[in-house]
Amino acid sequence: MTDILETIFKRRSIRSYEDRPVEREKLIQLLQAGTAAPSACNNQPWEFVAVDEPAVMEQFHTRLEDGPYNAPAAIVVCYNPQVGQTQRCDRFWEQDCSAATENIHIAAVGLGLGTVWLGVHPIEETISIVKDIVKLPEHVTPLAVIYIGYPAEKKEPRTKYNESIIHWQGYGHKK
Amino acid sequence: MTDILETIFKRRSIRSYEDRPVEREKLIQLLQAGTAAPSACNNQPWEFVAVDEPAVMEQFHTRLEDGPYNAPAAIVVCYNPQVGQTQRCDRFWEQDCSAATENIHIAAVGLGLGTVWLGVHPIEETISIVKDIVKLPEHVTPLAVIYIGYPAEKKEPRTKYNESIIHWQGYGHKK
Repeated sequence: MTDILETIFKRRSIRSYEDRPVEREKLIQLLQAGTAAPSACNNQPWEFVAVDEPAVMEQFHTRLEDGPYNAPAAIVVCYNPQVGQTQRCDRFWEQDCSAATENIHIAAVGLGLGTVWLGVHPIEETISIVKDIVKLPEHVTPLAVIYIGYPAEKKEPRTKYNESIIHWQGYGHKK
Repeated sequence: MTDILETIFKRRSIRSYEDRPVEREKLIQLLQAGTAAPSACNNQPWEFVAVDEPAVMEQFHTRLEDGPYNAPAAIVVCYNPQVGQTQRCDRFWEQDCSAATENIHIAAVGLGLGTVWLGVHPIEETISIVKDIVKLPEHVTPLAVIYIGYPAEKKEPRTKYNESIIHWQGYGHKK
């Protein structure tokens, strides 16, 4: 197995974190990983809010229904239609921002960090709460909140590969 | 820089491929990487069509407007609402399938392969063409076609990181 495949299998949703901060340098590396993602027409319709102030994290922990875990840091991956390079490709923004989000998760594993993806878009109520916490302008949409920290739980690497969901050449061929 | 960060920076859109097939074993590893992605509520609402028959690839090459590149293999990442484990989370399908797509891209770099992400959803005409080529049932939606092969072009690793799109703690803080 290649190292990269092993890293991908090691990425598991971590919901318990050590009580120590994440280095700024590592957060910046995660942001560099996110912004290395592909985007349709190279549109790059994304912005990121990076959070490591305890008072802001506390707001996520207490106000997000799916967010009570004790992560010391977070990255909010956002869509801003005003920063895209090629706005006719804006209809792909959810895919572009999701690719950036996944890059951050995978990079975190390589840095010894754990993460969990908290879904925001398209839940209107959660969008409102996140926008309020990190003061997003009206036209910016948060796709997801990624919690980040040193893992205090251990999970086994895994894939959920299953031949029944793979179709070779097309439906009905299966070989 | 960690190996994984380097791999993420190395993932570039490859549009020229060597004239040799991709080993089945490697295609299966890519599918294992895709199915290791996170999904909302662990829904796993995805199916995959893996293609390495020249006759099917030829259809992609000739019928997809953005697909004339000579890749010998492809994976079509699909959403099937009938395979999800937790269907109340189906509204996150585009994010789930995009995370799986990005995992495949990153894993490919580690296997010495090149890829390019061809956008399909939400372009109705492209969806129809892809459904026709790989015989998808009415209820299955193709998100993307990933072209796969040994790269015949070299691109430098890169990130598109840019401080102007990073907001620390929230909008208006920038520090």
